[in-house]
Parts: sequence; C-alpha cells; structure tokens
Amino acid sequence: MADGASYSVLVAGASGYAGALAARLVERHPRLELAAVTSRSDAGRRLADLYPHHRVDRELEELDLDRHARVDAAIVAYPHAASAPVVAALRARGVRVVDLSADFRLRDVATYERWYGAHPEPALVADAVYGLPELYRDRLRDATLVAGPGCYPTATILALAPLAPYLDDVVVDAKSGASGAGRAPTDKTHFVTVDENVSPYGVGRHRHMPEIDQELAARGARDVTVTFTPHLLPLDQGELVSCYATLTEAVDVAEVFASAYADEPFVELSARPPGVRDVRETNVCRIHALADERTGKVFVFAAIDNLWKGTASQAIQCLNLMLGLEETTGLLP
Amino acid sequence: MADGASYSVLVAGASGYAGALAARLVERHPRLELAAVTSRSDAGRRLADLYPHHRVDRELEELDLDRHARVDAAIVAYPHAASAPVVAALRARGVRVVDLSADFRLRDVATYERWYGAHPEPALVADAVYGLPELYRDRLRDATLVAGPGCYPTATILALAPLAPYLDDVVVDAKSGASGAGRAPTDKTHFVTVDENVSPYGVGRHRHMPEIDQELAARGARDVTVTFTPHLLPLDQGELVSCYATLTEAVDVAEVFASAYADEPFVELSARPPGVRDVRETNVCRIHALADERTGKVFVFAAIDNLWKGTASQAIQCLNLMLGLEETTGLLP
Amino acid sequence: MADGASYSVLVAGASGYAGALAARLVERHPRLELAAVTSRSDAGRRLADLYPHHRVDRELEELDLDRHARVDAAIVAYPHAASAPVVAALRARGVRVVDLSADFRLRDVATYERWYGAHPEPALVADAVYGLPELYRDRLRDATLVAGPGCYPTATILALAPLAPYLDDVVVDAKSGASGAGRAPTDKTHFVTVDENVSPYGVGRHRHMPEIDQELAARGARDVTVTFTPHLLPLDQGELVSCYATLTEAVDVAEVFASAYADEPFVELSARPPGVRDVRETNVCRIHALADERTGKVFVFAAIDNLWKGTASQAIQCLNLMLGLEETTGLLP
Amino acid sequence: MADGASYSVLVAGASGYAGALAARLVERHPRLELAAVTSRSDAGRRLADLYPHHRVDRELEELDLDRHARVDAAIVAYPHAASAPVVAALRARGVRVVDLSADFRLRDVATYERWYGAHPEPALVADAVYGLPELYRDRLRDATLVAGPGCYPTATILALAPLAPYLDDVVVDAKSGASGAGRAPTDKTHFVTVDENVSPYGVGRHRHMPEIDQELAARGARDVTVTFTPHLLPLDQGELVSCYATLTEAVDVAEVFASAYADEPFVELSARPPGVRDVRETNVCRIHALADERTGKVFVFAAIDNLWKGTASQAIQCLNLMLGLEETTGLLP
Repeated sequence: MADGASYSVLVAGASGYAGALAARLVERHPRLELAAVTSRSDAGRRLADLYPHHRVDRELEELDLDRHARVDAAIVAYPHAASAPVVAALRARGVRVVDLSADFRLRDVATYERWYGAHPEPALVADAVYGLPELYRDRLRDATLVAGPGCYPTATILALAPLAPYLDDVVVDAKSGASGAGRAPTDKTHFVTVDENVSPYGVGRHRHMPEIDQELAARGARDVTVTFTPHLLPLDQGELVSCYATLTEAVDVAEVFASAYADEPFVELSARPPGVRDVRETNVCRIHALADERTGKVFVFAAIDNLWKGTASQAIQCLNLMLGLEETTGLLP
Repeated sequence: MADGASYSVLVAGASGYAGALAARLVERHPRLELAAVTSRSDAGRRLADLYPHHRVDRELEELDLDRHARVDAAIVAYPHAASAPVVAALRARGVRVVDLSADFRLRDVATYERWYGAHPEPALVADAVYGLPELYRDRLRDATLVAGPGCYPTATILALAPLAPYLDDVVVDAKSGASGAGRAPTDKTHFVTVDENVSPYGVGRHRHMPEIDQELAARGARDVTVTFTPHLLPLDQGELVSCYATLTEAVDVAEVFASAYADEPFVELSARPPGVRDVRETNVCRIHALADERTGKVFVFAAIDNLWKGTASQAIQCLNLMLGLEETTGLLP
Repeated sequence: MADGASYSVLVAGASGYAGALAARLVERHPRLELAAVTSRSDAGRRLADLYPHHRVDRELEELDLDRHARVDAAIVAYPHAASAPVVAALRARGVRVVDLSADFRLRDVATYERWYGAHPEPALVADAVYGLPELYRDRLRDATLVAGPGCYPTATILALAPLAPYLDDVVVDAKSGASGAGRAPTDKTHFVTVDENVSPYGVGRHRHMPEIDQELAARGARDVTVTFTPHLLPLDQGELVSCYATLTEAVDVAEVFASAYADEPFVELSARPPGVRDVRETNVCRIHALADERTGKVFVFAAIDNLWKGTASQAIQCLNLMLGLEETTGLLP
Repeated sequence: MADGASYSVLVAGASGYAGALAARLVERHPRLELAAVTSRSDAGRRLADLYPHHRVDRELEELDLDRHARVDAAIVAYPHAASAPVVAALRARGVRVVDLSADFRLRDVATYERWYGAHPEPALVADAVYGLPELYRDRLRDATLVAGPGCYPTATILALAPLAPYLDDVVVDAKSGASGAGRAPTDKTHFVTVDENVSPYGVGRHRHMPEIDQELAARGARDVTVTFTPHLLPLDQGELVSCYATLTEAVDVAEVFASAYADEPFVELSARPPGVRDVRETNVCRIHALADERTGKVFVFAAIDNLWKGTASQAIQCLNLMLGLEETTGLLP
C-alpha cells in the first residue's frame, strides 16, 4: 500500500471500556480509518452517548460479517469464548485480527481449558502471536492473528522479563482501578463498594496467572513459582504491579533493565517508584527496579494504564507493527 | 411500659443501605431490641456478609407477618408502592410503623399519584405524621404511622423552614453521595461513572420536590417556587443543600435560625459553611445561614448524612418519640 | 511568517498546575515551539520530575528577560499582582502575552483594586483583550495582550452570555475539583480534607464575581444580580456550573443557544446534563440549557476542565488566534 | 478506685489526626474523663473547629505540666524524639502514659538510633510495654508506660504472629490511606497527588520495619527476612497488609489462627479477604489467612483502620488494661 494510505479497521465489541477506547484510538490515528463499531448489547445506540468523553460519534451496529469484514484489520473486544468464533470468521475472510480476549493468549490449549473451559477454536491457537511488542516485535510484523495480553500480564511481564533467567521465587502484588472489572454494573463495581476501600480478589486463582507463567518461561525462567494477587482500588484507570523476587544469581539490576529497554519507545525506566498517575491515558509502562540490600531481593514496580497499555493502546501498537506502520504512530502523547 | 424495658423492633427491607443501617442502629440502641430483619431479595443471607462494617450478625428472613408482626414497632424500608401494603398489614396487627418510602409523605393523594402512580393504600395517608421531629415533635409522640422524609427534603426543609413565611423565590442546588442512589448496581452507580465526575440529574422532575413544597407551605410559605436540582458526587455518604432565596421582607437571619433551633439536639448552627464530612455517620444537620449584602439574598447551606439524618437515624429519632423514650437515645455520638 | 513555520513561546510560571499544562500543550503543538519554562519557586528542577504525566522533559529556569524574552509569545502563569510587572517587561520587548492571572481581566481598574488591591500596571489594562474566543474572537486576532479568563467565569459566561439581554435574576452554583485551588499544599487541599467531602467556599466574596458581571453586562445584561457560590468537590480536574435564571421575556432557549454556538469548535450543546468527565482533558465546554416549565426559570449547566478550557488550553486557543493560526490547532482530541 | 469511678486523662498533641481521635474516644468513654487537650502548633484554637466531625468542643492549650500533669493517665501524640521528653516529665509526676510515637517501641536503643537518631530518654526504654494487647495483655495490666505500635506493625504483627515460629521468607505489601501520612499539608498529601493514584513509598527503608522484626522474633521467628513495602492509596482511613510467606514446616493455617485469636474481642477471622471498609472507624483487625496450594505459600490479609486500631483506639484498649477496666470499654460498636 502506498505510503500515507489508510487501513480500514473494524472494532467489534465497542461498547465495553476497552473496545470503546480502541475505537477512539483508531478514529484519531493518522493512518487508520474506523470502518465500523459493533456491539452485541448496545447496537443502535451511539458511542458518543455511552462515552461522551471519547467523542466518537458513531452508531453501534450489529456485527454483520458480509458488511463489516471488508476491512484490512479488526480489533475484537469480546469476552473469552465468545471471541474465538468471531475471530475465526474474520480470519476466514482474510481480516487481520487483534483479539483482546483470553482466547489466544495461552499457547497450550490444555492450560486454556483448565482455566476457561472448552476452547471454541483450538486450531487457531498456533497461529496467534502474543501481543506484547517489547517481547515479540519481529513476529508481530508478520502476524495475522494477535492475542492482546491481559492488563496484569502486560505490566507483570514487562516488570519481570529482563530478570526471567534468574528468577527463583516471585511475589506479585497487583493493584488495579475499577475499570479493569469491566462496564457491567455489579455489587463489586458499585461506587459505594469500591470507594474508600481496598481488598484482594481472585486470591490464588486469578486467570492471568498462567499467562504470566507462560511468558516468563519463554524468557528463560525455570520452575518459577509466581504468587500473584490482585487488589481492587478506588480509582478508575491505572494498574501497579509490585514484584518482589529472589534471584538465583547476582545480577546488576540497573544494567539488566537498561539494556533490555534502552530502545523501547513505551517503556520508561524511572529513578523513583512510579505512580499510576504518571502513565494515565498513555501507552507507557513505567518501571522502577532496584536490588534491596536489606533483604537481598529485587523489587520491581511497574505502572500502566490498564485500558491503554494494558489493553487498547497496546492493540494499536500491535496493529501498527502488523500493518508495517511506524510502531508509535497515533500513540505518542 | 416500665422504665428501662425494651421495645421489640422489626426491620423490613434490611438488605438495602437504609434498612441495613436501621438494623444496626436498632441493635445497638439501649432500649430497642432487634426482633428480626427481613428482605425480599436476599432472604437466607446474613446481614454481616452483605455489610460487614455494620456488624449485625443476623440472618435475613422472608417477611412472615404471623411471626414478624409480634413486635412493638417496625421500620419498613421498601420502595414506594411496595411499602404501603406491608405498612397496612403491620398496622392491622397493631404495630407502630416508621415507613421510609414515599408512600405516606404527601398528605394529598392526588399529588402522590401525579408523581408516583396509583396509591396502594390511600385511606392510610391521613393517619401518617411526617417524620421530621424538628417540625412535628409533638404529633410524633402520638403517632402510630410515621412517614420518614426523603433525604433531600430533610436537609432542605430544615434549611428553609425558619424562613418559610418570608420566602419568595428559592433555588436549591443539592449534592449527594452515591449511596443515595441505592444499592442496586446500575450504569449510574458504577464506580467508573461516578468517580471524578459530577452531574445534575432528575432536572426539573425530582420526586422530592412536592414534599419540599408541602412542608414549606405548612410552615407559612405562600406561592413559593422552589427550584430544586440534585447532583451526584463522587463520595459515598453525605448530602449538602445550597439554598439561595429572595425574602419578602427584611429579617434578622441569624436571629431567626437561632430561635428556631436553639433547643434542637440534632441541628447545629455553624459560623462557617458546613462540609458533609462534619456530619458523617451522625444524626446531625449542620446549617450555615447568612444574609448576602451584595445580592440581597439569603443563603442557607445544610449538610446531613443522607443515610443517617436523611433516613435511618432520623427513623430512630422518630421511634424514640413514638415510644416515649428520650429523643436522643441511641443517637448521640 | 511562512506557512508552516513555528512560533517560539515562553511559559513563565511553569511549575504550577496551569503553567505546566500550558508547557505541555505548547510542546506538542505543531506550530509552536517551547522556548523555555521558568519558575520562581522550582528553578533547577525538571518539569518531568514535578509532573511525570506531562512528559515535558525540560529544566525549569529562573526567568531572565535578556535570554527568555527573545520569543514570539509568552504565557504567564503567575499569581495576580506578581504577574503584571512581568507582563509589562515582556511587552516592552515586543512579546505577545497571554496572562493567566487576574491582572488584566477587569477593564475597570477601580473594580480590580476593590477585589485585589493596588494594580501594579494600570496603564496596560486598556490594551488587554479578554481571552474568551467565543466572545472576542475578532479582537483576539489583533491582540498583543490577552487576559485569560478565570475558570469559573469561562464556564459561567459561556453558559449565560446567549441569554444576557434577557437575564433578570441569576443564581450560579459552581462546583470544582481540587486542582482549581492550586498546587500549594494547605489544610484545604489536603487529601483528607477534600476526600468524601463537599463544601461551599468564598461565600459571597469570590473574586471571580466581578469578571462575570463585567462580561454579562458587555453582552447586554442590565442590572443583573448574579449570585455565585463555588463548592469544592473530591475530584481533581473538572468544573460544573449550574445556573438558574429568571428571564425578562420569553425566549426560545434551544434556539438562542443553537444560534449562539452553532459554529463554535469548542462548545458542545448537549441534550442531556453534562458531567465533568465528558470534557476531561479537552478544550470543550459542554452545555445543556432548558426552560423549566414548573418554575418558569431557565436552567443552564456547563461543564469544563478547569485546567484546560478553564485555563491552559484556552490560552493556546487565544495564542492560535493572536498568531494567525487555525484556532483549533493543537487542541482537537 | 471505686467501681464506676472515672479516670482523668490528658491528651497531649491533640491537634494531629491520632491525638484528636484519641481525645474523642476519651471524651465518650464511660469511665474516662478528658482532663485537657494540648497542642504545640494550635494552642488557642478549638478542637471542634479543626475537626468538626469529632464533636469535642474543647480548647487546645499549651502543655503546662503544673496544670496538666494532675491526671491519672496521658496519651501523648507527638512526633518521635519530641515525645520522649514529655513522656519522661509526665512519668516523673506519676502519670501513666500511652505514647503514640516511635520512641519506646524498639527495645534495643541502638536499633532505635539507627533508624531515628539519638534517643532523648534511653533509660526509659526498658520500662515500656509494647502496646499490642493481643500479644502483651498481661504485661499491659501492670504497665505504666506503653508504646503504642505503629499502624503498619499493628496489622502486620497480628497477621503474622501466629505463624512466627514457622516463618521463613515473608513479603508484606502494605496499603494505607492518606491519613497515615499525618495532617501536615505537603506535596505528597495534596489531593491532586493522591487522587487517582497509587504508588509505593519508603521502599526498602520504612521505619516500621524494625518494629515488625522485633515482635516476630519475640514470638519465635528465627532469622526471618521481612520484605515490607507500603503504598499510598486514594482513601482517607484504612490499611490493608497483604502478607505472602513461606513456612518452614506444614501447619494447619486455619487451626493456628483459630486457636490464636479465638477469644480476642477485636480480631475477626474472616472466610473472605477483608476490605478496609469492613473495619472503618472500629478497633477491629479483620484477618483472612489461607494456605495456597498452587505456590505452597501462606497468604494472610489483615485490615485495620490506621487511625483506630492502628493508633488511637488501640491506645484506649491499652489504657483500659492499664487502669483495670474491662478491655473493651468504650470500644465496642
């Protein structure tokens, strides 16, 4: 395609938090064109009524593959299990897909099925590339199916990947704002429940665990136990992972991180512990790593915006790679 | 009943915010005994699981009048229209009732029906006393049916009643925390909707308006137009009404309020504008009134906790009066 | 200057909330170049350390006119009285200035001095154009000194200007997030003071009042009393003004607003009451106006981001006009 | 002293968050009498103006030992180093003291001096009993000097003490509301800094660490490394510690906790992870402990209100013991 030309993009599942943000990012992207936005639950409503602050004045439609699959690419923001069949149908029509569900994140179908139930499209799993550009940049350039990582895995893997070969024992205490729980109103997301509160959830059984294990192993971690516990905080967007690790050998932590991320456009190494405000509404992961003399452990703190780098803007970063565009297009502040 | 004896109290509808707090206040009251807590939606669950911070370890039951009506009094925390039949049944068995719904607040049934639809028990309306002790103390001592005021009317009427005969034009801009919207999870009460936000709602048509008009008229207001607009704030409990009024004649505002509320145990006149924090988890209404020279208007700011003085603790204040107890029993900090 | 060329801009007072945001907006503006950022209190520190989320990695310098006045324009974000002398010095060297303080907002020096004390540069007052593009677009194109409006006046004047000739009695109840109180840590801005709270402040004596009176009079209001009361809310950025007005004659409210703002790029007329979330981090003022049948009044609700349209992004909008650029450059989402 | 008689109590340093709350709890206590409230910074102001919600209408005075030391007991809420001399002077006059500073928490003076600097009254250290009633109940009954624990140590020690003999490697990720940072307004406690944010602080060097080490060792922990990292959350009161531990031998976690805390009036064992809302404004520590099969670790989550059980109400609990009162007096909900 000629330089400067645009690629048409469908966003399916655009009425949720992640899909709506993806639609906004596509619409404002200088090289992408928002072909359509679809929704299973809110077809007929305008996106600008659901999310005035996104200022995407488009009507949500029922997904109709005959009309909507005539695009260069699609971002699919469906729940797991519901996503895979749509992804399969889009790919059958030659559409490149970034899937934001869990359906293609785990390379081992058996592991997927242990955590999520029967996989609707197991044959496609092998085609998927894990959508973390900092780890899979080259493969993403050739990918036609990308599995967008979970928000917690994004931050956790970026925090720990450089240390993966040396990791022994890892505790990850994660904290997320309420948008991570999704748009569905429940007792757990009621303002009165979340406000002035903090509590752990999914203790010992959060579905993002196997994804973290898979990617750390892929980076050289051996028999590492990762203890992962998320907490819900009274804020809307933002995620902080606090990682405490024992290492199998002495390493120069600063050097390891500097060399891992020196050229990364969206990873910032910070001399101070980050706050989630530092990265709000950006595609940036901000990391502070240090060796703690007192305990002999390594501490790594990583902050992202769960809806941006944790989901929607990272999907754009992947799309940029898949389409041969500059990786940072449409994502710089 | 002998001095020091206890009165048994049923709380019907105890799974909502107001009912649950009423149950807690009854349980800790030195002269009341919590006979039972019932719930239409959560029967079988324990109140301490729904609301750990209330520490009322009782099982919610289905309401069974044969068992539950053998009490001295009941607090009914049902939605309007659902409440009146339960109130009628309890009264038929001789139970004194404080009803927290709108069903008995409006003395004119036609007005009720214009705002809420058909009234299920219009014959009972004449028996009800409006449960604002500062205005109806004497009648509450003899009452067997009390209509607990709405939270906004509680603050607004306390703010304006002393000036009622002189009021000409009144603008009430009201602000409430999210607990005022009730426990049901909806788009409007989702943390992400409320957080970092403020917006008006019910503009020009909030159901608390006729109640305010009724009570100001009862205090001598003539043909007063009250403009009332509530706003939803990112906090859980607390309500502030900001009232801006034109008066028909010059009055000494400080004197009017001092004489109206000098002996009130739960009205505080403050030299500074109140914040809702000042009254959090108390039965206090804190008021700051002043004559503004620049505009010639009177400003009155009144703060309450919408779940306490605005609903549940005010119900206890009424119960104390109905049962011949000291009005402040169980309510002082 | 040739099409596409850049203009160099100094931001003086860049360590405060408004100045720091102005620096960010200048740095990312396609036609402006951030020449320098200066600070009286934080010279030597890096802006990216004070405000990581702005990602403006520049050192704050002491203001040195010999070096820093060699620019096309300056944004001055000093407190009132401190600002005027710096503005005078910059103008003496031919620099176009947008001043964010109150020093040049009031065209009547006596009024200024009644509210703020002696004016340091009264002779300059007549040169200033009030920096509200929706009212003064043409004059701003020729202006060399622009007085950026206060945040409350921005929202209030946009809410009421279309109705100015018909206004009789106006009550403005304003609500603002804590960033409006500035960066200085005080008892009033402590998290524990603001959180779970709402209270009025500056009752009857807020300094933004005369500015509102001045501009409504300029639009044809006659002897209008504006009652203005701000409230502090537990949120960081965002401002809502709720205006309740009596009109001297019947007007078609929808029509008046539609015709006033039909072509405005940054005023949105909304069919629903706005929330401040709708305009967060944008230069947009979102307005909902309606005639209320019950009271005969007009209600107008206007939401802005106090740091953006209320201060810093509006300054860029003015700069665009002053420099002959497209008004929306660098400000569209 | 005859049954039912009162003990007079001085609260020194009553203008801070902890001291003010202590004054409120003393004033409402059925067996204590608030003799005086003093303040170094706010003498002459009324406590009810600083903290309207406490409703303690007393004037803050300059501390004058000749007048103020004629009491049965004192709660001293001064900063470390400033506290010890006042404590010494009070004790010289026979006053029982609960000190809320760090000055008497560490039994090893050298350790104190490594973390805090020179100790002003090292000779008194040996007299102090650590004010955690769940561990030192008997000794507190005879104590005349009690060192109120830090808020983080209170929650952390209660979470880990039952497991102390089996602990090997412990990671404590702690989360606290902003009141823990004290009343002084700073950049770090500004609403805009805290709101919508979460970040670690005091990484690797928080002063509460040695206190935790000391008490776990006293309960039988051997050579345990405790990794402790606090985080600041956007809420006012509340503290959650999330503890992840490796054990040296298999233990029945549920049994260990049940037997440790079966009779504790203020420790609640919960079947679900606690939220800080569950314990807001109570003297309760709510704990959820579980053995995690996947990792082989023990997880313990403990929630307290940092100003209540973490500081002021725990001081009352200690006072009750010191004065021979029922331990729960004035502290039950």
